[in-house]
Amino acid sequence: MGRVLVLFDSASGNTAAMAEYVGEGARQIPDIEVRLVHVDEATLDDALWADGIAVGTPTYVGLTSWKMKKYWDEISHPTWGQLDGKIGCAFSTSGGWGGGAELTCMSILIMLMNVGMLTFGVTDYTGSQFTLHYGAVTAGKPSYEKEIEAARRLGKRLAQWVAVYVDGRSEQHPGPMKERGA
Amino acid sequence: MGRVLVLFDSASGNTAAMAEYVGEGARQIPDIEVRLVHVDEATLDDALWADGIAVGTPTYVGLTSWKMKKYWDEISHPTWGQLDGKIGCAFSTSGGWGGGAELTCMSILIMLMNVGMLTFGVTDYTGSQFTLHYGAVTAGKPSYEKEIEAARRLGKRLAQWVAVYVDGRSEQHPGPMKERGA
Amino acid sequence: MGRVLVLFDSASGNTAAMAEYVGEGARQIPDIEVRLVHVDEATLDDALWADGIAVGTPTYVGLTSWKMKKYWDEISHPTWGQLDGKIGCAFSTSGGWGGGAELTCMSILIMLMNVGMLTFGVTDYTGSQFTLHYGAVTAGKPSYEKEIEAARRLGKRLAQWVAVYVDGRSEQHPGPMKERGA
Amino acid sequence: MGRVLVLFDSASGNTAAMAEYVGEGARQIPDIEVRLVHVDEATLDDALWADGIAVGTPTYVGLTSWKMKKYWDEISHPTWGQLDGKIGCAFSTSGGWGGGAELTCMSILIMLMNVGMLTFGVTDYTGSQFTLHYGAVTAGKPSYEKEIEAARRLGKRLAQWVAVYVDGRSEQHPGPMKERGA
Repeated sequence: MGRVLVLFDSASGNTAAMAEYVGEGARQIPDIEVRLVHVDEATLDDALWADGIAVGTPTYVGLTSWKMKKYWDEISHPTWGQLDGKIGCAFSTSGGWGGGAELTCMSILIMLMNVGMLTFGVTDYTGSQFTLHYGAVTAGKPSYEKEIEAARRLGKRLAQWVAVYVDGRSEQHPGPMKERGA
Repeated sequence: MGRVLVLFDSASGNTAAMAEYVGEGARQIPDIEVRLVHVDEATLDDALWADGIAVGTPTYVGLTSWKMKKYWDEISHPTWGQLDGKIGCAFSTSGGWGGGAELTCMSILIMLMNVGMLTFGVTDYTGSQFTLHYGAVTAGKPSYEKEIEAARRLGKRLAQWVAVYVDGRSEQHPGPMKERGA
Repeated sequence: MGRVLVLFDSASGNTAAMAEYVGEGARQIPDIEVRLVHVDEATLDDALWADGIAVGTPTYVGLTSWKMKKYWDEISHPTWGQLDGKIGCAFSTSGGWGGGAELTCMSILIMLMNVGMLTFGVTDYTGSQFTLHYGAVTAGKPSYEKEIEAARRLGKRLAQWVAVYVDGRSEQHPGPMKERGA
Repeated sequence: MGRVLVLFDSASGNTAAMAEYVGEGARQIPDIEVRLVHVDEATLDDALWADGIAVGTPTYVGLTSWKMKKYWDEISHPTWGQLDGKIGCAFSTSGGWGGGAELTCMSILIMLMNVGMLTFGVTDYTGSQFTLHYGAVTAGKPSYEKEIEAARRLGKRLAQWVAVYVDGRSEQHPGPMKERGA
């Protein structure tokens, strides 16, 4: 039974709302245990527990929030090598389009790759002109269906990769794009 | 009289449309000469001619188009050191929000910094939840006023920095944000 | 039997030399088929064939070479969705330390994530003050043992992830760092 | 008289050592006031005071340290728009080559661009196979002459751009590479 951690920071509640949708998406895959944890409550054991980790923070000056950075700075040495091969992805809410949410996702993926994790984005479109190639992003709280679905799709894809690669349940592979629709 | 080059690649015409708006914005500053050049027509002399360069391409797999990459790969050695201190910025149109337009802008800024240029984004918001912190971005052709204004603002800011820093016209400094509105 | 593609661009031969070491490393894992292909010879089928892909290019203005960019620009649409879940990593040789090799690896990983692949770096150190957290990098041709071993380790790790995740051979998991040494 | 701030974080003393060299380089340009500040002591006024800012941190999981992130997270809103047009650059010391120092520099430049600053790297080589295209980097404490000179060169170039662009002293322009040697 694969384990998915949705680890987030949130000040206004926007990224927390997105974290809920990511968690919902992960639960769409059977036999995946999902845990949502605010970074203020997160411990080293949360990262060790998980097979897959979705990390989300507000977009602050184009990067992960300092609290999320502090978490990874502090656990990276004590867990060195033990996170190798876990699967990770990113999400972020920003003050505006063009405001750095993609770069924030990339900064999160950089942290996760640094500790040995395999990271991914999602090729699917969840609506007109809307995708999550480097993680799920919005300006402000996710409100349009395509924004909400992008967050769900991220969590679902994470759970799928965990199911396929960690649990060995190849039938959960999302399969080629043409079968997934947009 | 400062010189601004708007150098772009475009297949569908979307990035070409944005380049026009960037050029319009640059022309809002008096005594700035503006030149728009498609990368297919660009020569090494275009880069040498300019004081400021706005580079735009479609978002292709999250980075600058290969044609734009080829241009900079080929001129970087022959111009080495001669582009130092020029001022640069970026813009991109993508297939969808979350599709890599910010990362494409960043890839452009990486090229420009590599050849010694000073690069910038813009702190202004040009409408509700819309900004250009790492360059002007849209999904598809710029059509909403805030998208068009973001492209114009990018060109204007480039022309302002050229006026202030290269021409020594300090009165063109955009000044503190509170005087600029959103 | 997992399949590893080492896809590279090289002008001076430095990145080609590194590609050889990456291939050597991949062959250290039993029952992995390894194919080395210069980007000039690469076809769409090479990417489809592989379970894992190591992509290497010289560091040109801080990003992947334009030829490698052209390859992914051209195959990304025809293969859309079909590369999802493949495993990827990066390597690069630059003109000097501090010259952009890490950023070039990151640009490669951005391309690979854009097409749906899972990307990784390696936490191991292969000698004093030498690692490959975002891919294997050198200044010039790999010559010191720790540089050569970094390239080999990258290929080996790619083959390990393919063996574990695609072939389901969990005994090939590299295991915790403490058992791997430096 | 231009003002240069060297703002750094350091735990082991390695980045602090580099900060000293950056400061030395800045002082090579006449009539530039230089201030070195550890992030633990830094206030919002330090950023407002400066015309040019060199920001350095250890490489922690491939990004700026959380303390430096916290500083910019906290001052970005109160200073919004007031840092526009200041000039910035980056430096970092890591545990090993290939360990993320370039990416850390890039994360710093992302923060500085987000708040409106013009950011740059340096095209010069300071020794065989050694440069600072995205900021000065080392593995461990800077000890070789080319590493020390890279840190100095970064500070000097920052002071030069401040002298040329803020003070209007065009004679301080570093000029084309061929006159600068390598």
